[in-house]
Amino acid sequence: MMQARCLDAPMLGKTYPGQDCSAARSLELVGERWTLLILRDAMFRNYVRYSQFAESLGIATNVLAKRLDGLVASGLMEARGTGPRADHREYHLTERGMDLKPVVMALTAWGDKWLGPGPAVFRHGSDGGSVVVEARCTECGDVVNPADIVARRRPVPPSPKS
Amino acid sequence: MMQARCLDAPMLGKTYPGQDCSAARSLELVGERWTLLILRDAMFRNYVRYSQFAESLGIATNVLAKRLDGLVASGLMEARGTGPRADHREYHLTERGMDLKPVVMALTAWGDKWLGPGPAVFRHGSDGGSVVVEARCTECGDVVNPADIVARRRPVPPSPKS
Repeated sequence: MMQARCLDAPMLGKTYPGQDCSAARSLELVGERWTLLILRDAMFRNYVRYSQFAESLGIATNVLAKRLDGLVASGLMEARGTGPRADHREYHLTERGMDLKPVVMALTAWGDKWLGPGPAVFRHGSDGGSVVVEARCTECGDVVNPADIVARRRPVPPSPKS
Repeated sequence: MMQARCLDAPMLGKTYPGQDCSAARSLELVGERWTLLILRDAMFRNYVRYSQFAESLGIATNVLAKRLDGLVASGLMEARGTGPRADHREYHLTERGMDLKPVVMALTAWGDKWLGPGPAVFRHGSDGGSVVVEARCTECGDVVNPADIVARRRPVPPSPKS
């Protein structure tokens, strides 16, 4: 496990044990390229079988099996079916895993912009409209330029009277 | 270099050499945990010096130096100053690097939701409003549920008459 310091520590000159940075903690689960590409294939190609991921990624079978097991262990995928061989099981995204779609989409948007347009676009299943990932201000409603986004310490909720 | 197949290949039953998936290509540059955490520190703590990253991340010096060099080589950071020692230089985010903020923010939002609220929130520098990363449909204007987002092949622009 990686033990990088929390986002708030240097900002506040104080560490908060147990309050790990959410980005660092998320990376502990998905911060490995194959893991994120397996999730991509599950999210956008609806792959569920070991053989589908293996063919798509060209990854060593022991590595793939380990990554799939890790995704199940961390609750991002759910294994269905039984049997000694991984290819007899299906791996389905959980809601927790599906919720990583914006991460993959944000990575894709960045690549489209800075490395050249890729072959895929994202659409709203209901009406076919383009779906874009945006950083939006809930105060003014504007899409915010990255340079104008800052991190602040999360406000501490008032402690209940007892 | 990772050579995962393109997002469009299985959807279309055809590969397009040279049209790599943008998510996979982006991961080739930033798909390593330390790299993304260095970027996080540069983005949201305004760190620029080797010693700042080293203290924040508790990472082996040779690994940190290699990752910073990689970030410069891929155009995500710019080295300023000269000298034989990395700590005599400063590492500043380029626009290309700053544009990865939504990726780090999307990871953070996911961690806040599924692993418990972290210590940091994102604000609009101009007005202090909360900044949230959203997947929004440009057709209906709604924030789209992850399960209702699909990938489609990017439309090919009409070839110009010649």
